[in-house]
Amino acid sequence: MSTDESQARAQLIDLAAQFYDQFELGEIPHMEVPTRSKSNIELDEEANVWVYGDRTSTRSANSVRGARKLLKAVFTIEFLANQLEEDRSSTLRELYYLSESWDNEEAQFNDQDESNGLVEDLEIVSGVTREDFHMRPEESGAKVMGPLHIREQTKRGDRDIHCQLDVGQGGYQIPNNPDTIEFLDHDAEFVLCVETGGMRDRLVENGFDEEYDTIIVHLGGQPARATRRLTKRFHDELDLPVVVFTDGDPWSYRIFGSVAYGSIKSAHLSEYLATPEAQFIGIQPADIVEYDLPTDPLSDSDVNALENELTDPRFQTDYWKEQIELQLEIGKKAEQQALASRGLDFVTDTYLPERLEEMGVL
Amino acid sequence: MSTDESQARAQLIDLAAQFYDQFELGEIPHMEVPTRSKSNIELDEEANVWVYGDRTSTRSANSVRGARKLLKAVFTIEFLANQLEEDRSSTLRELYYLSESWDNEEAQFNDQDESNGLVEDLEIVSGVTREDFHMRPEESGAKVMGPLHIREQTKRGDRDIHCQLDVGQGGYQIPNNPDTIEFLDHDAEFVLCVETGGMRDRLVENGFDEEYDTIIVHLGGQPARATRRLTKRFHDELDLPVVVFTDGDPWSYRIFGSVAYGSIKSAHLSEYLATPEAQFIGIQPADIVEYDLPTDPLSDSDVNALENELTDPRFQTDYWKEQIELQLEIGKKAEQQALASRGLDFVTDTYLPERLEEMGVL
Repeated sequence: MSTDESQARAQLIDLAAQFYDQFELGEIPHMEVPTRSKSNIELDEEANVWVYGDRTSTRSANSVRGARKLLKAVFTIEFLANQLEEDRSSTLRELYYLSESWDNEEAQFNDQDESNGLVEDLEIVSGVTREDFHMRPEESGAKVMGPLHIREQTKRGDRDIHCQLDVGQGGYQIPNNPDTIEFLDHDAEFVLCVETGGMRDRLVENGFDEEYDTIIVHLGGQPARATRRLTKRFHDELDLPVVVFTDGDPWSYRIFGSVAYGSIKSAHLSEYLATPEAQFIGIQPADIVEYDLPTDPLSDSDVNALENELTDPRFQTDYWKEQIELQLEIGKKAEQQALASRGLDFVTDTYLPERLEEMGVL
Repeated sequence: MSTDESQARAQLIDLAAQFYDQFELGEIPHMEVPTRSKSNIELDEEANVWVYGDRTSTRSANSVRGARKLLKAVFTIEFLANQLEEDRSSTLRELYYLSESWDNEEAQFNDQDESNGLVEDLEIVSGVTREDFHMRPEESGAKVMGPLHIREQTKRGDRDIHCQLDVGQGGYQIPNNPDTIEFLDHDAEFVLCVETGGMRDRLVENGFDEEYDTIIVHLGGQPARATRRLTKRFHDELDLPVVVFTDGDPWSYRIFGSVAYGSIKSAHLSEYLATPEAQFIGIQPADIVEYDLPTDPLSDSDVNALENELTDPRFQTDYWKEQIELQLEIGKKAEQQALASRGLDFVTDTYLPERLEEMGVL
């Protein structure tokens, strides 16, 4: 086991040990977790990410239902501790199914929401992330192309991979746990996260990563945890600016938001996953006007989403207010690939360089 | 330009040349394409894939609407021919947007359905695939792990990659056009296509590809064209059996169907994309009974889909009839990962080896 793994394991065992201590003190076993409702989530003004508030809930064995919850927690802790000891991993779905093999039927999960929720509780209470429990997500991370030399620790030994020279056109596939990646060396100036596969391929085909020393990260819609984690590590460890390039509609602004500020659902992971310094490059509503891009009209649900964003604490800046109000006024949205209406090289020769200069990245 | 590219380009120019010939003969320019309705699609009994029937439709300039269609075709042919000459590529969406930059407004597309449909017409009439026009899909291909050494021709030079030794845990990312891949060497005994990411990761973690000399192809739900094309090439060029491993429900049987027989939507590509020799390994309804797997009840739409499959020409075999009737009888479905209820190694130690032996693959 690595230090991380031993530590994760120790923290799990500590949790179980608390129950012993409580028994010894004659207390009814219990576990305290932050209340995970929307009303107990707040924007940490300083770090600019979502975090839980001060309210906590108690899982106690003082009812049959509560006792059953703690039993399930103990079985899960044992499973995770063994998994770490054996250096294995599993998915959330496997954990759910696996519980059917536990000989205590009371400990088996009724549905996957229950096991997912428990693992999140354990993450929050132990301060260890799911990845460090060796729970793999179902969703794959996306892919990376750029002047970066990494070493990935795999089950089969270390792999040294240069993310331009040692990979095909498809790039380097991010592993489920990107903390197995060590950064060896790089010539990158900044990180460009791209929403769509079509635009990612355009940038790679046009050699944008080579010309501008860019690490191109494909988000693939709402980004997976692995993708957000790796992006954060690029920023924090390599000290690289991160810019996010999406379609110009309210759903895409949320994609930017999840890279930059984290999500309400995983507020306990903001510190691990969010990159509050990430900047939005476009498509901005202002670009739709300035570059006269082909557009679609805003639908009713687009308008609603924009109006929600106007009151969303994450978008309470002059910049976002101006852009969102402009978009509501013009009533239009545009896709990244709409830039092709100016020719296939417009995005790499003109649009991105101009925007990057405006933003002070170039 | 490679031979393939010159040939694709020549076939496009031929199409345009036909219009000149027709003009010279005093004919109204026209183009003949197979009728692309469901009633003109049939299962080729011999090759066991979907193909178009004998009915054709004529696109003729004898109406303003028809003339406009041919005008768009000519502009698109010119764009594609230039693209091939410059060794560039683009997505279907870029083509649609790009048409806004054409100086003849009549040639611009009204919506993306129109440009997509035209590119499909050109594929069918010229006998050249979209990939050979250098039209990239929006969807990415999935990933490969196994004892296979390939050379990928990229814009940046050739890349020699061993799909176990030179890649991380995530595997080798299939490029948009897998015909840029040359197979150098391999020790594989068979190809295993896997529906879900969670199961793909389980097999890789358990070293199944190493122990059984397997090329593991991640399908990622309904497989992308690139994934199906590469699977077919593994079968045809390396002479490897292909088995498909999905969830045990009617939607997953369709995933198997699209690997094996192609889809109605792309009947003209069956020869290029479908692997009729592919075999279904499971989850079979019989497995649900035999291994007593955790299940969910069939929903109404599941039952409908199963009943449709009973009359679908692709599933008219004794094997599929028996399995589908059994499933309707037990009224249950199961996921791949439900095998974890027997322990995390059950799938690689017991289930797959047993099934592969039954099927004569091992």
